[in-house]
Formats: sequence, C-alpha cells, structure tokens
Amino acid sequence: MNSFPESLLIANRGEIARRIIRTAKRLGVRTVAVYHKVDAGLPYVAEADVAVQLEGDIPVQAYLDGEQIVAIAKENGATAVHPGYGFLAENAGFARTVSEAGLTWVGPSAEVIDIMGDKVESRRAVAVAGVPISGDAGAALKTGDEAVAEAKRVGYPVMVKASAGGGGIGMAVARDDEELRKAFENTKSMSERSFGSDRVFVERFVESARHVEIQVLGLDDGTIVALGERDCSTQRRHQKLIEESPAPNLDPAVRARLIESAIAAAGSVGYRNAGTVEFLLDTNSGDFVFLEMNTRIQVEHPITELTHGVDLIEQQLSIAASGTTTADFNPVSRGHAIELRICAEDPKRFFPSPGPIDVWVEPAGEGIRVDSGYVAGTEVTPHFDSLVAKVCAYGETREQALARAIVACGEFVIEGLTTNQPFLEEILASEEFTAGNYDTGVVEKIQKRLKAAAKRSA
Amino acid sequence: MNSFPESLLIANRGEIARRIIRTAKRLGVRTVAVYHKVDAGLPYVAEADVAVQLEGDIPVQAYLDGEQIVAIAKENGATAVHPGYGFLAENAGFARTVSEAGLTWVGPSAEVIDIMGDKVESRRAVAVAGVPISGDAGAALKTGDEAVAEAKRVGYPVMVKASAGGGGIGMAVARDDEELRKAFENTKSMSERSFGSDRVFVERFVESARHVEIQVLGLDDGTIVALGERDCSTQRRHQKLIEESPAPNLDPAVRARLIESAIAAAGSVGYRNAGTVEFLLDTNSGDFVFLEMNTRIQVEHPITELTHGVDLIEQQLSIAASGTTTADFNPVSRGHAIELRICAEDPKRFFPSPGPIDVWVEPAGEGIRVDSGYVAGTEVTPHFDSLVAKVCAYGETREQALARAIVACGEFVIEGLTTNQPFLEEILASEEFTAGNYDTGVVEKIQKRLKAAAKRSA
Repeated sequence: MNSFPESLLIANRGEIARRIIRTAKRLGVRTVAVYHKVDAGLPYVAEADVAVQLEGDIPVQAYLDGEQIVAIAKENGATAVHPGYGFLAENAGFARTVSEAGLTWVGPSAEVIDIMGDKVESRRAVAVAGVPISGDAGAALKTGDEAVAEAKRVGYPVMVKASAGGGGIGMAVARDDEELRKAFENTKSMSERSFGSDRVFVERFVESARHVEIQVLGLDDGTIVALGERDCSTQRRHQKLIEESPAPNLDPAVRARLIESAIAAAGSVGYRNAGTVEFLLDTNSGDFVFLEMNTRIQVEHPITELTHGVDLIEQQLSIAASGTTTADFNPVSRGHAIELRICAEDPKRFFPSPGPIDVWVEPAGEGIRVDSGYVAGTEVTPHFDSLVAKVCAYGETREQALARAIVACGEFVIEGLTTNQPFLEEILASEEFTAGNYDTGVVEKIQKRLKAAAKRSA
Repeated sequence: MNSFPESLLIANRGEIARRIIRTAKRLGVRTVAVYHKVDAGLPYVAEADVAVQLEGDIPVQAYLDGEQIVAIAKENGATAVHPGYGFLAENAGFARTVSEAGLTWVGPSAEVIDIMGDKVESRRAVAVAGVPISGDAGAALKTGDEAVAEAKRVGYPVMVKASAGGGGIGMAVARDDEELRKAFENTKSMSERSFGSDRVFVERFVESARHVEIQVLGLDDGTIVALGERDCSTQRRHQKLIEESPAPNLDPAVRARLIESAIAAAGSVGYRNAGTVEFLLDTNSGDFVFLEMNTRIQVEHPITELTHGVDLIEQQLSIAASGTTTADFNPVSRGHAIELRICAEDPKRFFPSPGPIDVWVEPAGEGIRVDSGYVAGTEVTPHFDSLVAKVCAYGETREQALARAIVACGEFVIEGLTTNQPFLEEILASEEFTAGNYDTGVVEKIQKRLKAAAKRSA
C-alpha cells in the first residue's frame, strides 16, 4: 500500500544522514551513504548498507560535488536521492541533475526551489496568494502630511528613515501624528545636511519580533498539509540555538492565520514534499510577514515529529515515491517539544571548537530524543558547521518539556570538546525563556546580562 | 500547586535509580542515592545530589538492609523514600519502617502490600469485588454426571485432573460431554491405580493464554485511574523479554472488562499510588482471571508513559506528597510502544554473562527511549539480575513501533558483554510477533524453531 523508493542515496553527512538511515532501515529501503575521508569513522558510514568515499581533497567541496554524487548513486543502484539539509539541499541544479539521471529527487521540483530561492520572485509569488510581505522601501515622502497619511496606512508605531542613511543614522520611531511630524522634519533636514538627499520614508516599526515557521507537506494532488508551528526566535546572529513547538503564548487566531498563510504560500507555487514557511511575527500586534520558504527538511524538524506523532522523513520518501503520504498518516497535535542544538564551540565567544571526542554519553529516558552524528572515539573536524547533536525534550506541558530539557542538557557528557551546553542552560533557566516571553533579541539580552554579572563578580 | 517530597532517597540501583533521579531533578526534588561499592562507578551514583555507600559485603544484602537505608535517609535529610522495583519495593516491613521513621513512603500502605503479597488474601479481596479468579482446585467429583455438570458450569474445553497427580500424569482435555465421561473414567481409574486416590476434578482448560496487565494509580479520595494495558506474554520462564502497549488484537470489549476488573481489584483494598493488576487472558474466549497485583512501579512502565503521555514517577511522587495527581495530569492514549529488555546473557542458554563494558552506544532518534543503568567503562557484575537497559520504541502505529524497535535493537552497540539482542531480534522478526498473534508460549516456540533450523544447517 505504502510506497517508498527502493534504494536511497543520502547526499549528506553526520546527524541528518544517520537520522535518514534510521527511517530508511525501518521501511526496508536500502541506503547508500557518501563520505569524505575525514568522516570515515562516523557512525552513519557504518550504519548505511553501502558507503562510498567521495573523491576530492576539500571536504565541503566533496559533499557539494553533485556530479560525483549522482554517479555514485547510479553505480550503486540507488533509485532516489535525499539531500538532507545544507550542502545541495536547496540547489536547483542538483535537483535537476538527479531527475535527469532518472533518479527520484526527495524534495520539491527544481523550478520550485528556484522560485523560493529568489527573494523577489518568492515574495511576488506568495503576495499574489494573499500572504503578507514586508513593505517595499516605500515611496519618498515630501511633506509631514504625506508622512502621516502613510503612517495611517501601515499603522503606528512607525520608523522614519532616511533613504540614503545607514547604520541607524537619521532613524526615529514615532508613535503618533505629532511625534511623526517632528521626526519627519528632523530626519529630512539631517539627511539633507549629512547625505545631500531629502528622500525620507516611513515603515511600520516592529519593536519586538518572533521567528515562527510552519511545517508543510505538499502532495501531488495539490493538497498542502500544515503540521503546526515552531518558534525559532532563540537565535544568535541568525543561528538558531533552541526551537520549540508549539510557539509559547501564541494567540490561537494568529496561529490560524499563520497556518492559512503558509498553506497559501506553498500552494502558490504548487509545492510538493516537505518544506517550511518562515514568518517574522510582530510580538505585540500579532501581525506577520513572510520571510522565506525553505525547500527541504529543517534541522529542527524533530520537534514537529514529537508533537504531531509523524515521521517526516518517512512522509518525504512516501511523497517522493507516490505523490502522497502513507496510508496511516494521521497527525494529531499533542504536548510540547523543545530542541537544543549542541554545538562544539566556545560558549563565550562562539568560536568553533573542534577536536577528538574522548567521552560521549547521551542523555536518555522519558521524553528525551537525541539525534547525533558522533560517538566516543570519533572526531569533530573543523571542516563543517559545529552542530554535534540535537537534544529534543517532549512533555505533556511546556513546563514538563522545559524541565526535561534542562535535565537532559546537564546529563549529556561530552569530554574532549568545548560545547555550548552551559550557555544553553543559561537560556533555558532565564526568566524570558521560562515565561515563554521572548523575541529574537533574547539571546543578546542574556549575553549582556551574563557579561554584566561577570564584571560585577570580577 | 503541585506538591512533591522535598528530598528523596532512592532505595535501589541501576537503571531505575537513574530513571527516578531524572524525574526528581526535573521537579526540583533533591535526591539521595545509596550504593554498594561494586556499583560505585555507575552513572546513577554520580547523578544523584548525594550518594552514600552502603555497608555490608554482600551487594544484594546491602540493598535489602532496610534499617541501614532508613538511617541514611534520616542522616541525609531525605523526607521520602522511593523503593523502585525489586529489592525492598514490595516489602511491607520496610514500608512500615519508613513510615514509622516519619518519612513519606512512595507506594501503597504496608497493609495493602501485605494483602496483595498473599495469594489467598489477595484473591479473596478481589473476588469479593467481583473480579474473576481461577477456580479453586475444585470439588472432587464422584461420577461422570457430576463431572459433566461441573464442566457445564465452567465451560468447555475442560481439563480433567487427578488431585494427587503431578507432572501431567492423568491429565486429559475434554471438549464435550462424551469426551469428558471417557476422560473422567480413565483418569479416575489411573489415579486409583497410581496414587491410591480417586479424587478427580475438572477445571476450565486454557489452550492459549496471554499475560495482560493494567496500570493503575490510586488516589487518596478513593479514585482509581487506569492507564491502559500492557501485553507481557513474551516471556521465557516467567521472565518478561518484550512488552507492548496496547495489547495487539485485543477485543475492545475485553479491554473494557479488564480495565473495569483492575479498577475493582485496586479499589477492593483502597489502593493508593501506582500499581499493576496482572491477568491471565484466555486468547480464544477472551475470559480472564486475576493473577496478582504488583504494589510498585513496574519495569515495563515506560511503554505506558509513551502511549499515555504521563510520567508515572512524577505521579507517584505527587500522590505520595499530596494524595492526588499533578494539576496537569491528563492522560490521553495515543500510538503504540514496545519495550525490549536488553540483558547481559548468553542468548542461547540464557546464562548471565557479566563483564566490563568496553563500548556502549545507545540507540537514539525518532520514537526511541532508552532507560539504562550503564555507560562505557562500567562493569556488569554478577551480583544482580542481568537487565542492563530497556529500549522502548514508540510509533503512531504498531507497525511503526515494531520497525523502530528492530532498528534500535540492531543499532545498540555493546562490546565486552554478551547480550540477548540477537534473540530479541529473532522474536521481533517472527511471524507470531509481527502479526501480534502470540501467547505465553511464543518464546518457547521460537526457541524450538531456531534449534531445528540450527540442526538442519549443521
């Protein structure tokens, strides 16, 4: 009844290769792994049915060598290719090469990857489908009256900006007409003096924003299934550190609109297979705009699997092979899940900190799921990103999931590497995270507080 | 709102001590571990807030030394004692000592432990509450007519037995009146000749039985909450090897009656805290009889946690402290879970196989939960039972859970010990287990098949 590819090449490495192999094994799908020689000792290489060493001196380049990977797939009887995330996952050219070689591509079509990979085209496509996008730079305004009219259109508070400005120069926030008229004149004259330009515009000011994304699955018949949201606001310089599902303190009406918009966005391009629609959400107003769509499985997909009782890799393979989900696909949302990204890095300065792993004891037990790419005796090399494991904690309530995440983070013993575990623990224990009351500024805020505390105690 | 003991001594070792510490940590409950020196290197000792070495040369005796353990609890400020399973868990005297020392006992009262620990008293108590129990040895029957009347009462098929017989001598199955009359006369004369006794009786013959148990929680207000069933038929000489929840192919009407009976059995003694009511279920008729009630947390409790989204240790602590479940306790049954007991033993002859653990890499990933008591570098000593880890696989469907269990069993790398993993894999892959169509004879059946296959190939 269910249909999957017969044999799958995994064009990736580490934890995601291992995770894909697990599901493939369960489904009876033969696996072909590829690896650069620096990764020869990693568990995914041993766990695949066949593992082929990639040629090429530079590790990252080897994993990006689509021609070589497709040749390996053909030589080793793979009938499908799963790209994981990163590397070639959002490379339309690779998707095309795979399909042209007569292999099944586990992902959306090359055309859809192309559209979603282009900022202008993707915004145009989803806007046509009624999905909110952030305003253009906006028209230059000539008078205070024009500024007030524009502010009424986008809604207060607004940000007054000099078109020629940069680095915050001439920017001012206005919360009503009076403030706006004053700010407009100030910015205008400042801009003329500083930049020789009187081009001033206003846009809506988002004081506090959250990064919320919706998991979708697109089927051949045009159906788009949405599997709830993930809050990924806990980031450091756009690097996600902790994600959770559902998003805490999210108005159900806003959630419903997010889901509706995600379905519209995916539907606007005839999206097929698993994808994620990212939104920037105004914490205060509940308004949101489309950020981008990731046309692949996401690093943080396990928290959706935990809260919805689905195996997203299984569904990806099913959709790739048959255009639809498995017969028993029946997502029901229950409980709460939190993902911690354990990275080999200096927790203070966030420098990568590779090295050999002497001791590696993963946390386990009730509600804990670990997706990792390493075992004791292997080595984290400096060639790739610093993610070494994902620890997910599930609980019936957010409180329970959070408490389990804290215990698991402390329980994970990694010796030989410096990891970000202490910093993750600081975030988990913070007032903001505990209350589920945070935005994309939360990590910076906690870092500042830790620095101040360190200074005081010095 | 929720109430838990402040500080908990765990009167146990290994995986269950570790599992209890995890929940205690999450709830902010301070933990006191006890250990014999042979266990000094085990992870639970390091993970507890305080760990105290037990005096006494013989390891098992040390863990059974209730006086010493209660003294350690008092000296180290513990306010409650959790006995885990095994050792002192069903020792009414220990429960009494703990309570008399002013400590909270995490379990039912000593009186209830006493009643349920006595075969005669427990059967009497539950029978009064309307729970089916197996017939008494039955009245000796004088004539074929009397035998037929008794057979009509208990229902065909029946087993004819000589009261003085043993080892199967004189036993015969009868499926109708005619067969019974013949069997009755044969058994009677045989018994007279062999044993000098004409005492013959009949009882219902169960051709195929399953071991099914119901998890309950008893609250101070008399409420008994039932949390579904576990099928534990996959046993070898009464040692459970694999358990699953829900029980496969169980008629919903039978499940409802089992739950009703479990609630009645627990209610009959005013049961408080977590317990398990075990039944022997006639696979064909759906009739069942009460076997016994275990007045403690069960080894296989995680599969109920996975399918019901509860933390049973948390609920035990809540009931012990406040007489009721936590405020957010809201069990909802979803999906399917299978537990594998990984034991350090020769998989052919089932001899314990202790030794130092050189490599220990636990399975992980989607749907997998591991409860283990060891890490690499520790040693399995011959002093205790051979259970080294429990691997639980959850899935939305039984098929998914089973396939995940198979992958996880293969993924678990334990070097230095001989374990039963290959035999567990044989069971999981068997036709009987795959179809969910098995009874308490399944392990013996598979063993016979394996032996025959080995002979053929030799």
